[in-house]
Amino acid sequence: MNDNFLKACRGEAVDRTPVWIMRQAGRYLPQYMAVREKVSFLELCKTPELACEVTIQPVDYLDVDAAILFSDILIPLEPMGMELAFHENRGPVFANPVKNEADVARLRVPDPTVDLPFVLDAVRLLRKELDGRVPLIGFAGAPFTLATYLIEGGSSKTFFNTKKMMYTAPELYAALLDKITDCTLAYLKAQAEAGAQALQLFDSWAGVLGPDDFAAFALPYATRIIQGLKETGVPLIYFVNNGATLISLAETSGADVLGIDWRLDLDDAVRLTHGRVALQGNLDPCALLLPEDGLRKRVAKILAAGKKAKGHIFNLGHGILPQMPPEKARLLVELVHEMGSA
Amino acid sequence: MNDNFLKACRGEAVDRTPVWIMRQAGRYLPQYMAVREKVSFLELCKTPELACEVTIQPVDYLDVDAAILFSDILIPLEPMGMELAFHENRGPVFANPVKNEADVARLRVPDPTVDLPFVLDAVRLLRKELDGRVPLIGFAGAPFTLATYLIEGGSSKTFFNTKKMMYTAPELYAALLDKITDCTLAYLKAQAEAGAQALQLFDSWAGVLGPDDFAAFALPYATRIIQGLKETGVPLIYFVNNGATLISLAETSGADVLGIDWRLDLDDAVRLTHGRVALQGNLDPCALLLPEDGLRKRVAKILAAGKKAKGHIFNLGHGILPQMPPEKARLLVELVHEMGSA
Repeated sequence: MNDNFLKACRGEAVDRTPVWIMRQAGRYLPQYMAVREKVSFLELCKTPELACEVTIQPVDYLDVDAAILFSDILIPLEPMGMELAFHENRGPVFANPVKNEADVARLRVPDPTVDLPFVLDAVRLLRKELDGRVPLIGFAGAPFTLATYLIEGGSSKTFFNTKKMMYTAPELYAALLDKITDCTLAYLKAQAEAGAQALQLFDSWAGVLGPDDFAAFALPYATRIIQGLKETGVPLIYFVNNGATLISLAETSGADVLGIDWRLDLDDAVRLTHGRVALQGNLDPCALLLPEDGLRKRVAKILAAGKKAKGHIFNLGHGILPQMPPEKARLLVELVHEMGSA
Repeated sequence: MNDNFLKACRGEAVDRTPVWIMRQAGRYLPQYMAVREKVSFLELCKTPELACEVTIQPVDYLDVDAAILFSDILIPLEPMGMELAFHENRGPVFANPVKNEADVARLRVPDPTVDLPFVLDAVRLLRKELDGRVPLIGFAGAPFTLATYLIEGGSSKTFFNTKKMMYTAPELYAALLDKITDCTLAYLKAQAEAGAQALQLFDSWAGVLGPDDFAAFALPYATRIIQGLKETGVPLIYFVNNGATLISLAETSGADVLGIDWRLDLDDAVRLTHGRVALQGNLDPCALLLPEDGLRKRVAKILAAGKKAKGHIFNLGHGILPQMPPEKARLLVELVHEMGSA
């Protein structure tokens, strides 16, 4: 079994730097689009055989060192009682955003085995299909990020309603976040029990918070999940997108690995986290467009910085873009494997 | 004359910390909306009497220590030869984005006195109307930010086309940026000559670049403008939005003041710039929603950090949001004046 990914998560020595790509199962791959032509995005998430198929596509095509379950961070919000729809060009929409105590009181904490069986079935099926080729990563959205969708009713540019609740109704905000946290912890535990070998917590929007607000309104909930997962023995990756000023705080969460976007030099990330955690990242997703010699230079710089970290998993600093030619992703994986050998 | 703003820009002692608010002339003000009911956004930008009227509205209502010319960073791109339209809910759109050498060759470098007389007329009218009450700030978009609009044809989430040009056609990109830089330098010089007493360069999107890319593809052009303006004697504020990891680089531009968004603690901004520049910022625009005691605490923290800077101009970390009750902005100005007195 290729366990370089899990070893790097744990800060153990590796043969070569492991690499995977956020959103590696996605729209840039023609084989993914072929599946999507037949089913909607939500159907794909909810059909274990198809989720399994698209999860394995990049393992076959790219030769990455980890598979990540095909799903969406918003999936567990549906059984909480939220009506979720994906509109073309508008992204996810919740028709009934959370506004008051009654809305929060109405939210259920789902039982993943009852309410989200298709996710756990996909995990089990994937473990069987992958058969030890590469480890399987499960994931969930971090509570702050999930809360923004519930409060804003979808994506947002300014997060006005979320911050309004934080600043003017902190008890309501805390009650909402507590419920999301309970839900997410149970959900990730269930993924680990079903066979996920690592877990990533995506705080996609926490980068809209200054450090004091991150410490007060996002980090405590993420930390509770990370600590609650310790008993599973499964390594956890915490990715705070656009979180350059939040990295030192994020390190206190107890995550085994911190995901780093491309805005922060990986050298600085090592320094800011005092070499205490493994790091994942952090090539600009657009840098895949560089000619090969330019790409090599960037890969070399990131690999060199990664050697100073407790462990390093190569990745993009954000998800691969739908417009990216797939052969660019394959070249990246080749280069990391070639240049990142011990 | 209240010259605390100009003194702070120059790092001189002030009676009290000056304060103004990005987008202080804007949609959150009913008196602004009353003017906008009569004319389109572009007409407002191009009618000196009306631009003057809305520029002075927040000086009257908020008691801020500086006025900033009402205009838009995209205005000088029209006489460069780009067709600009503002669509409701879609933001600015350029129907003919820049794609190749012919597109760049076609772009003109406008003569501001001939092609943008309404801006210079507004500046002159404003100096007369303000009559020394507070200094007048002129502004422009920084070259990288303007280039993103020209290349993407409007706003963008991922800046794929811009980065694609940077990475795969660096000479084309440089030719485009050179032209925008020439245009912007002439435009800001003309504003200074017409009477602008300070100038702000908005790099609204440079925060999508990692440090190496910022140093290669954005900073050199901003620096050329900043250095070229030294002969005017007018202080320059360089605002790199979402630029926490770019601050040390931005400091090398020679700007008198750096604008700081709310993601970076102002203490850290002082440290990262070695106390060599004045700083402007950096309250989270949504923090205006806090109850007064909470707002006081944040203002106090920012004022205390600002005292360690070479100079400090209080501001939000980004533009005031259209949904903000105007009395919240007025309270902020009152608190800064009360708590920031020497």
